[in-house]
Amino acid sequence: MNRDIPGFSLQRMPVYLNYLRSLPDDDAYTYVSSGAIAQALGLGEVLVRKDLAYTGCAGRPKVGYPRAELIAALEQFLCIHDHKGAVLVGAGGLGSALLGYGGFANYGIELVCAFDNDPHKVGGIVGGKPVLSVDSLEAGCMEYGVQLAIIAVPAASAQGIAERLIRAGIRAILNFAPVQITAGEDVKVINIDVAANLAILASML
Amino acid sequence: MNRDIPGFSLQRMPVYLNYLRSLPDDDAYTYVSSGAIAQALGLGEVLVRKDLAYTGCAGRPKVGYPRAELIAALEQFLCIHDHKGAVLVGAGGLGSALLGYGGFANYGIELVCAFDNDPHKVGGIVGGKPVLSVDSLEAGCMEYGVQLAIIAVPAASAQGIAERLIRAGIRAILNFAPVQITAGEDVKVINIDVAANLAILASML
Repeated sequence: MNRDIPGFSLQRMPVYLNYLRSLPDDDAYTYVSSGAIAQALGLGEVLVRKDLAYTGCAGRPKVGYPRAELIAALEQFLCIHDHKGAVLVGAGGLGSALLGYGGFANYGIELVCAFDNDPHKVGGIVGGKPVLSVDSLEAGCMEYGVQLAIIAVPAASAQGIAERLIRAGIRAILNFAPVQITAGEDVKVINIDVAANLAILASML
Repeated sequence: MNRDIPGFSLQRMPVYLNYLRSLPDDDAYTYVSSGAIAQALGLGEVLVRKDLAYTGCAGRPKVGYPRAELIAALEQFLCIHDHKGAVLVGAGGLGSALLGYGGFANYGIELVCAFDNDPHKVGGIVGGKPVLSVDSLEAGCMEYGVQLAIIAVPAASAQGIAERLIRAGIRAILNFAPVQITAGEDVKVINIDVAANLAILASML
């Protein structure tokens, strides 16, 4: 689902959800106006209204959006209530940090296990998750029946790992290796190159 | 600089650079066509040509771009040769992983130190970098004369830390806290919410 909404609108949905969840449970925030949301997030008000229209939650003229309803609509839009499992490949520094990161639960996502090729890590527990041998990547993905994966391996291995994941039924990949992963039309990929993002910022100074 | 180029073109520049650097040093790759680059990265050829035009490196009809020249142009475009220091705030799991991450050097960026509020970490070394007390945030930023910062603190502290960094002379912030940081016009911010990105992927399944 959610394929019919522009990617950049979709990317802002969790931002709206985080913001609305962060507001105090106070009568003053029973309704939130698109103007208030726009100002808090540094976005244009028209853009905010357009984005939120995709959730099907209607704002009330001069009053704003009923906050609880808008949060529920965003949660439903992001499918937060259907629990989803994800696997992580590469239990190095970044991978280990992600295994211990609690933020995924806010979106109904659970990292079920990690895969690594380091014999000292395989068989162990990192961030409360079992680390399995990368040799069992395909078997593990199928056993857990996951469609989501995070790649945190060195650049040289990333594309190969992605192809193995896809053959094992993975349909969406969040890639932290500093290389652009390419996949077929039917597989969604988001590449996050941390150093590249810092370089982009630096180049704008 | 680089304020006159569309943000999405700018974001692709490190992707082109990584790809070109990854090609074998082989006569077959002395020239690289926009078509080959487009296909390898899953982008449109017209888009690739438009992006690369910003670097000032001209492709030769029927031959392509001289690879070494294009790499040099991209490196200059991204200011990779002028060494830049950056500070990191929050030496937790993700922060520690970033301190140990070698990828920043590829862009001429060095993490000079970290700041944390945990007395067990302050005074120690993580990823080869000193961890200083967050109380000395302003003094440290000014002493190192940095303009770049990475925020890896909990959501509730992120905006406050950002404001302290900006007062201390920071002009660009890469924020990993799961909250949208807002700053003045003259400060560049990229927010990377890891869990939100995974949620976006999950919602597209």
